[in-house]
Amino acid sequence: MTADTALRTSAAGVPTGPDQLEAAVEAAHAAFEQGRTADPAARAAWLEAIAAGLEQDSAALVEIAGRETHLGAPRLEGELKRTVFQLRLFAAEIVQGEHFDATIDHADSSWGMGPRPDLRRYNVALGVVGVFGASNFPFAFSVMGGDSASALAAGCGVVHKAHDGHRELAVRTAQAVTAALDAAGAPSGLFSLIIGRQAAEALVDHPLVKAIGFTGSTAGGRALLNRVAARPEPIPFFGELGGINAVFVTRKAWTARSEEILTGYAGSFTLGMGQFCTKPGLLFVPAGSADGTSDGSSAAEDADVRGLLTAALADFTPAQLLSERLHEGYTDAVRRLQDTAGVELLVEGDFAAAPAPTVLHTTADAVRRNPEILRQEMFGPASLVVEYGDESELAGLAGLLEGQLTTTLQAEEGDDVAQLAARLADISGRVLWNGWPTGVTVSYAQHHGGPYPATTSATTSVGTAAIRRFLRPVAYQSFPSGRLPEPLRDGNPWNVPQRVDGVWRRPSSAHRQDAVNQDAGSQEEQP
Amino acid sequence: MTADTALRTSAAGVPTGPDQLEAAVEAAHAAFEQGRTADPAARAAWLEAIAAGLEQDSAALVEIAGRETHLGAPRLEGELKRTVFQLRLFAAEIVQGEHFDATIDHADSSWGMGPRPDLRRYNVALGVVGVFGASNFPFAFSVMGGDSASALAAGCGVVHKAHDGHRELAVRTAQAVTAALDAAGAPSGLFSLIIGRQAAEALVDHPLVKAIGFTGSTAGGRALLNRVAARPEPIPFFGELGGINAVFVTRKAWTARSEEILTGYAGSFTLGMGQFCTKPGLLFVPAGSADGTSDGSSAAEDADVRGLLTAALADFTPAQLLSERLHEGYTDAVRRLQDTAGVELLVEGDFAAAPAPTVLHTTADAVRRNPEILRQEMFGPASLVVEYGDESELAGLAGLLEGQLTTTLQAEEGDDVAQLAARLADISGRVLWNGWPTGVTVSYAQHHGGPYPATTSATTSVGTAAIRRFLRPVAYQSFPSGRLPEPLRDGNPWNVPQRVDGVWRRPSSAHRQDAVNQDAGSQEEQP
Repeated sequence: MTADTALRTSAAGVPTGPDQLEAAVEAAHAAFEQGRTADPAARAAWLEAIAAGLEQDSAALVEIAGRETHLGAPRLEGELKRTVFQLRLFAAEIVQGEHFDATIDHADSSWGMGPRPDLRRYNVALGVVGVFGASNFPFAFSVMGGDSASALAAGCGVVHKAHDGHRELAVRTAQAVTAALDAAGAPSGLFSLIIGRQAAEALVDHPLVKAIGFTGSTAGGRALLNRVAARPEPIPFFGELGGINAVFVTRKAWTARSEEILTGYAGSFTLGMGQFCTKPGLLFVPAGSADGTSDGSSAAEDADVRGLLTAALADFTPAQLLSERLHEGYTDAVRRLQDTAGVELLVEGDFAAAPAPTVLHTTADAVRRNPEILRQEMFGPASLVVEYGDESELAGLAGLLEGQLTTTLQAEEGDDVAQLAARLADISGRVLWNGWPTGVTVSYAQHHGGPYPATTSATTSVGTAAIRRFLRPVAYQSFPSGRLPEPLRDGNPWNVPQRVDGVWRRPSSAHRQDAVNQDAGSQEEQP
Repeated sequence: MTADTALRTSAAGVPTGPDQLEAAVEAAHAAFEQGRTADPAARAAWLEAIAAGLEQDSAALVEIAGRETHLGAPRLEGELKRTVFQLRLFAAEIVQGEHFDATIDHADSSWGMGPRPDLRRYNVALGVVGVFGASNFPFAFSVMGGDSASALAAGCGVVHKAHDGHRELAVRTAQAVTAALDAAGAPSGLFSLIIGRQAAEALVDHPLVKAIGFTGSTAGGRALLNRVAARPEPIPFFGELGGINAVFVTRKAWTARSEEILTGYAGSFTLGMGQFCTKPGLLFVPAGSADGTSDGSSAAEDADVRGLLTAALADFTPAQLLSERLHEGYTDAVRRLQDTAGVELLVEGDFAAAPAPTVLHTTADAVRRNPEILRQEMFGPASLVVEYGDESELAGLAGLLEGQLTTTLQAEEGDDVAQLAARLADISGRVLWNGWPTGVTVSYAQHHGGPYPATTSATTSVGTAAIRRFLRPVAYQSFPSGRLPEPLRDGNPWNVPQRVDGVWRRPSSAHRQDAVNQDAGSQEEQP
């Protein structure tokens, strides 16, 4: 059964009408206002309740997701675990209070530019956030994925637009979420689900909606971005649109580890049937044979690359893609790139319902003549190997790339890649050393972002920093202490970090909730 | 001599041609790239050099500014002092390293969602920033104002579009800035000035420009925002567009201090001839006489309000507005509002070249019938007094306002204004208690921003937090320590704050540069 069939047979396929959309947004706004009085521990409890609710319903959720996405139980179970972990990590983060960025400047008559009044600033939630789920991560970037979790952590209300590819799962997930929120005593309407394009457009246009989170295609994202820009009141559009995720292999690394590199590459670009935003879609390798000496033969003729890749892909068991529509798009993209001048087939796959992986090949000269070769996303199990002549070309080749979520260096000790690494930091949000870009951990330091068209902003959609997207600062001048929001009071009743007259004061361990599984309870340390 | 005459007689009136604009942007980009290797102390030295250069040329700068803006030497000297202070505060801030937001997650095999690789994130500069200067602050929001200073502090290159109202000053200021940067050894081209609309449009469209800072009118800002949104690559547009800055007086406060309040109001809305983004353009006062008992007479007929305001304005010496164009706009705006149904004249001014202040009057009923009355900015020495009946109306009246830079509460101990204060935080970036919104200190906690149309983003254009606007995060995964940027190394060679595995570690006092005039050198304190 294809995803489309699943959709048609599902009762969840009923689009949200205009009145229902209006009611959902208004309820989310009212819940956001009501929930503002909650302290971080109360809000954290709501996130914890959602996490527990999803765990409780995991068997059914994974079963439905499997039917709708063909992604398979092990992957889906892992994704749900990640989703649940994320909610708990965000809960711990808001209890720590980092997101308030509480800053207190006491009145100072000797301040350098003239007397300064008492001035205090912290972050408050934006209001209602509209979230668009992704096709390829039915849990981690969908109903209660990173955007929804971070918006709720920030204190926002959320109206989530279900991805058409897994509506039944969306409805089931939303049921688990709202039941958990209700049981935990969260304001009614804080989260809701909508279905269908018409409701989605009304959501983007709604004056009470103060930000949009989106994960999806560049074309779809750009269309929504333009719609947002045309609103009377402009709002931030946090779009994660994907990318090509180029990998650069130095000659030394190639000499030392070509087999290991090609095996890692094959595993990474086929992971989840290549349907990851972080799939490595480009591999730059040196021309010549794998022993590092150039004998004039191209890698396409080189049994090492073709042979090693073929071997690495031999045990791969193809699965269906997420939907028929994606399958069509994938087939078109691969065929179009394969038909481009200077591009050849390196490892032949197919376009069966469960397609075997395809690897294409080109040269640095060809991409310099036509940089568009480097900018074609093939959303599925295909990738492009680019042969370069001399390592000094790599920084220039990187300069031909558009913005990327990730770039990767495969290099050895002693390689002089400083210039290339600087260029990769220019064009991507995460730079990896001798790793593979698929697999995006949820942590404090994660940055899942990158210059356009990878994303539409300088923010991350993964990790605790994602919470900041849905906050805005407010300053209070000369307010009586008792009338200040808790994070800004001298007594610091919520025990949050405060920057006081330029110096950060952080809570002591005694009052600090441990992070999810970190020893975060130690005292402020001096390096 | 009007500003327009000054312009025509100035050699600075030559518009920047397309080739010059291209050269300026490319030079700024090259300088940004070259400057990236500078450590914070070196970059801070560039800001300090600019500050010293402006101080050195202050007599000439103030003289030219006086001629071009009519603002008068005392105000201009204060503004220049503020501008110089700001550069030094930002220099101290980047040496402290807060802006890097350095975050280090060590590899952790027991991380809750599965093994975590070593992952480290910090902020890097965006690239070239285009800055548009304001008419009303020829120093603090112009050539080397908050946008330019914060962009340079972030590590960006800056191309500044001179405001047509003070081009001669712009050229002179830019000369002082570039001379100081050159002498301090900053990369050539890091800052430059452009003139004219055509060059400004090319600046906004240029692919190497990665952000725009703008201070000006709502109409001008919206036009630029739309132009930015139409770029192939969307970039952030940080527009500060002004506002109405409503002030709410409770009945108790009115009873206790009506004379003091009206005197403060008169002083604030006429400060700088009312040409401040933070001018209080609305004053909500209770109906009835000043003793708190309502006798059915309106405040317009009440000798107290008219009389007290007239007395407070009696000693006021009008000056010319910034330009003839602004004078026309001011005259039109006041007359249009005065001709609106429900609005009356309370204190009659005039529209002479140096206009005497005007105060209009309306009622809560009238603005509920026509909320547009509350949304008319009169950029000059005019304001509107709104009478309300009962304090319980105030939160609803606040809800009729658009986004504001500031809102102000004039209230007394015991007043129950929690709901109103929450509403004011919803609609404004800074909420004041028993103060006046004009005067925006440059400090750590300052937030000069607010919901649209006050600004176009959730950021501040004043204070150290303004630096963050021009940064973007980059994460490094599994990088060898020696290849990591300095702020992300375990050894912490730049001695910056690092969040390590979820826990912030801040430098000890021994290595910490004191803030400008703060005792910021003390150890991390426990509350």
